Amino acid sequence: MSTTATRPALTRLREVLGEVVDLQRAAELLQWDQETYMPPGGVEDRASQLSTLQRLAHERFVSAEVSRLLERAEAEVEGLPYESDEASLVRVTRRDLELAMRVPSDLVAARASAAARAASVWREARAASDWSRFAPELEISVDLSRRLAEAIGYEERPYDALIRMTEPGLTTARVASLFAELKAFLLPLVRRLADLADRVDDRVLDRPCDRDAQLALSLEVIRQLGYDLSRGRQDLSAHPFCASFGPGDVRLTTRPGATLRGAALLASVHEAGHAMYEQGIPRSLDRTPLWGGASPGVHESQSRLWENLVGRARPFWEWCLPRLRAALGETVAGVDVDLFWRALNKVRPTYVRVDADEVTYNLHILLRFEIENELLEGRLRVADVPDAWAARLHEYLALERPTDALGPLQDIHWCSGMGHFVGYTLGNLIAAQLMEAARRDLPDLDRQLAGGAFEGLLGWLRERVHRHGRKFTPDELVQRATGSPIGAGPWIAYVETKVRAVYGLG
Amino acid sequence: MSTTATRPALTRLREVLGEVVDLQRAAELLQWDQETYMPPGGVEDRASQLSTLQRLAHERFVSAEVSRLLERAEAEVEGLPYESDEASLVRVTRRDLELAMRVPSDLVAARASAAARAASVWREARAASDWSRFAPELEISVDLSRRLAEAIGYEERPYDALIRMTEPGLTTARVASLFAELKAFLLPLVRRLADLADRVDDRVLDRPCDRDAQLALSLEVIRQLGYDLSRGRQDLSAHPFCASFGPGDVRLTTRPGATLRGAALLASVHEAGHAMYEQGIPRSLDRTPLWGGASPGVHESQSRLWENLVGRARPFWEWCLPRLRAALGETVAGVDVDLFWRALNKVRPTYVRVDADEVTYNLHILLRFEIENELLEGRLRVADVPDAWAARLHEYLALERPTDALGPLQDIHWCSGMGHFVGYTLGNLIAAQLMEAARRDLPDLDRQLAGGAFEGLLGWLRERVHRHGRKFTPDELVQRATGSPIGAGPWIAYVETKVRAVYGLG
Repeated sequence: MSTTATRPALTRLREVLGEVVDLQRAAELLQWDQETYMPPGGVEDRASQLSTLQRLAHERFVSAEVSRLLERAEAEVEGLPYESDEASLVRVTRRDLELAMRVPSDLVAARASAAARAASVWREARAASDWSRFAPELEISVDLSRRLAEAIGYEERPYDALIRMTEPGLTTARVASLFAELKAFLLPLVRRLADLADRVDDRVLDRPCDRDAQLALSLEVIRQLGYDLSRGRQDLSAHPFCASFGPGDVRLTTRPGATLRGAALLASVHEAGHAMYEQGIPRSLDRTPLWGGASPGVHESQSRLWENLVGRARPFWEWCLPRLRAALGETVAGVDVDLFWRALNKVRPTYVRVDADEVTYNLHILLRFEIENELLEGRLRVADVPDAWAARLHEYLALERPTDALGPLQDIHWCSGMGHFVGYTLGNLIAAQLMEAARRDLPDLDRQLAGGAFEGLLGWLRERVHRHGRKFTPDELVQRATGSPIGAGPWIAYVETKVRAVYGLG
Repeated sequence: MSTTATRPALTRLREVLGEVVDLQRAAELLQWDQETYMPPGGVEDRASQLSTLQRLAHERFVSAEVSRLLERAEAEVEGLPYESDEASLVRVTRRDLELAMRVPSDLVAARASAAARAASVWREARAASDWSRFAPELEISVDLSRRLAEAIGYEERPYDALIRMTEPGLTTARVASLFAELKAFLLPLVRRLADLADRVDDRVLDRPCDRDAQLALSLEVIRQLGYDLSRGRQDLSAHPFCASFGPGDVRLTTRPGATLRGAALLASVHEAGHAMYEQGIPRSLDRTPLWGGASPGVHESQSRLWENLVGRARPFWEWCLPRLRAALGETVAGVDVDLFWRALNKVRPTYVRVDADEVTYNLHILLRFEIENELLEGRLRVADVPDAWAARLHEYLALERPTDALGPLQDIHWCSGMGHFVGYTLGNLIAAQLMEAARRDLPDLDRQLAGGAFEGLLGWLRERVHRHGRKFTPDELVQRATGSPIGAGPWIAYVETKVRAVYGLG
C-alpha cells in the first residue's frame, strides 16, 4: 500500500494498526501451538498470555490515538476511489472500530471467561451425554449474546447485530430467505434420495487405511492444488484448522482417520482452501485490517470450493485416484473412478454435522440458525433445546431422537455465543456461485482438473477474491466476482446436477 | 506469592509485571517456533511481530505507572525479610528497572536492528570464511556495546557495565581473577596431556549411529533425570536450546549427529539441565521478574552440571551404557563402561568452542573475554582480531592458525554485542562448586547415579538453587548453596581428579 508524505495521519495510523495486527498474530500463533505441540501443563500459562495479548490488541485498537488518526485519515483519502487501498483501509478500519468501541471491555472479558468455563463444562457434559449439565452455561452464553446484541444495536432482531459483526451488510431476514429457498429444495430431495439409497454403494469408504500414507498423500495433493509449503506447513490436531501469522506463514492442520471415510485428504483440502485464500492476499495489504478473509462466510466459500466443488468432483478423482492407489495400495484395489466418486457423494443423513454430506449439511445449519434465533428472542427455553432439536431433526432428516451427545452437545460453538454457524451455509452458497462464474471464464475447467492442473482455478480465485483481502463486504465481493449478490440458485443448480449424476436419475 | 489488601501497590505492580512477563513469554514462543517449525517464508512477518512484542514489553516495564507503583511498594515491604517473596520482588524489579531505564529506546532499537543485519552478514562471511566481510558489522557492534556500557555506566572498565546487566554483583576484575586462576592451572595441564594422548582411545565415538534411536534414548534419559514431559517437550533445531513459557511449559530442542561424538544425548542432557531449573521455580514466583534463572552463568551451571558432572561421570555410564546398547545395538558392541567413559573425557584441543572438551573449553572463553575487553577498550582493532585469535589459540591450545570460519567467525554471539561468553565459564565453575556441596550432603551420590536415581541430586538443586528463581545475585545464591562465593577451586579440583583417573596418572 502506498503511503505518502502527503498523508501523514494515514501513515501513522498504519503503524499503530500494524502493532495491533502483530499482537493478534502472536495470539494466533499461541493458539496454534496450543492445539498442536503445547504440553498439557501449559494450559494455565497460555490462558494468561492469550488474555494479555488480546486485551492489549483491543486497547491499542480502541485507543484515542487511533480515533484521532482515523478522523484525519478520512479527510486525507477523500476523493480516492472506493476500491483503492487507502480508501478501503480507512473505511474498513472505521467499520471495525465502530463495532469494537460499542462493546464495553467488561463484556469482552465476561464473554472470554464464560467461554473458557463453558468449554470445560461442555466437554464433561458431552462425555456424560447430559444436556442438563451444560444448560446453565448456555443460559449464560445466550444472555451474553443478547447483551452483545444490545451493545452493538439492531433494528429488527438481535441476531442482526451478531451477523453484522461477522458478515457485514447481511441481515437475519436475508439469511432466513436464503434458508427458506434451500429448505424448499432440500426437504423433498432428502426424502426422495432416502428411497434411492441402494443405488449408490459407498462401502469402499469403510475400508481401513494407513495413517502415514494419508498424511503423505494429503501433503502431495494440497501442494499440487497450489498451497505454498515454503509459506506454510501441515501439522496434526484434534480438530483440523487453518491459522495464519502473515503472508509468509499460513499453516493448516489435519487429522488422519481409521478408514477412507475419515481420511485426512479432504480435511487437508478443506483447510488448504482456507490457507490458499490467505496466501493469496497481497503483501501490500499486510499488517492492516485489510489483510485477511472478507468474512467467515467468504472464507468458508474457499474451503468448501476446494473440498466439495473440486475435491468431490469426478474430474478431480480422475487425477487423484491413481495417487490414492499409489499411496494406499490394496485399500482401493478394484475401485474405479465412477464407484469412488459416487461413494464420496452418497447422501446419508447423519446426526453429526461434521460428518454430513453436501446435501444434508445445510439442514444441520438451518436447525441451529432457527434454534439460536428462538433462544435469543426468548421463544425457546434452554431446557427445551433437546426437544426442539429432535423435532427438527425428524422433520428435516427423518432421524429419530439423538442422545444429547449426538444432538445439541455435538458442537463446541455455543460455548462462545451465538451466530457462528451461518458462515458455513453462506460458504457453501458462495462457493457454488463462484464456481459457476469460474466455469464461464474457464470453459475447459473440468479437463484442467482431470489433468491435475489447478492453477487456472486458483488464479481465477486470486484475481476475483483473494487479492481484495477485507476490502469489500461479502455481497460486494460476490457481486464483483460473479455479477450477482449472494444467492442460493447456483448451489441448488449444482446439487441438482450432481445428485442426478450420482444417483443416475433421468 | 501472598498479596494482601494491606499492600495495594504491590498487588497492582504484580498485575502490570504479569503483563510484561506474558508479552516476553509470547515473544519467546515466537522465537521457539522460528527455530523449530516456522516455514522459511515466515521470517519477515516474524521479525515484525517480535519487535512489536519486545517493544511493548519494554515500554510497559519502563512506564511511569511501574515507577510510581514500585516506589509505593518499596514502602509497603519495608521491614520484610530480605529473602521474602515480597521484598525480593521489589528489590529485583528495582534493579531491572534501573538498568532498563538507563538504556535509551533508540539504542535498544539500534542494537536489535544491527544484530539482525549482522547475523545475516555473519552467515555469509562464515560461509566464505572471510573476516573482512564481517569486520564492518563488528565495528558497529563494538561501538553499540560501548554506547551501551556508557549508558549503563561503570567505574573501572566498560565490560563492568555489560557484566552488570547479566551477572549482577560481579565485575570484570573478579572474572579476570577467576580466569587467571584457571589459566595458571590449565596451560601446563593441556601441554602435559598433549603428550599423553595415546593413553585414551576415543575412536568408539566416531562410530555412526541411528538418528531416531538417539532421539528416543535422549528422551528416555532426560525423563529419568527428572525433566517433566507433561510440562515440556523435545523438538529438533539447528542449535539446541531451552525455551520457557511459564512453569507449565519449558521446552528443549536437540540435534542428532552422524556419530556418537555428535549424538543428541548430551545435548539433550545439557538442555534438560536448563529446563529442569525453570521447571523447579515455584508457581508462587510466576509472572513476576523473580521467575527465571538467577543469571546466564547460574543457568549454565545447571546445564553443565547435568551434562558434564553427571553425564560425563563414570557412575552415570554404569547406568546409561546398557541403555545406550539397547538403543544403538551393534554401534557400541564390545565397549565397556571404562572405555566409553574415558573416551568421552579425552582432552583434545579443537578449533571450535562447541566441540571442546571440559578441560580446554574455558580457554576458548578466556580468549574471547580477552579479545572483547581489548576491542571495547580500543586496544585491538577489529581488523586485527584474526591475528589476536591465532596468537592466543597457539599459546593456549598449541593449535596452528585457523581459517576465519573456524576462528573468530565460528560464533554468532558478537552479532548482538559483547559480554555473552563469560556465563559459560561461570557456569562451569558454579556447577563444580554446587556438585562439591551436593556431595557433602549426599554422601552416596555416586551410588545413586550409578543406579539411575537422580531425584536426590535434583531435589538438592531444587532446594538450594531452583526454588529461589531470580531472588538472589549469583554470588548470593552460590554463597547460600555452598557456603562460599563463586570460586575456581572446586572446578580445578574436580578436573584434576577426573584427568588423573581418565589418563591413569599416579
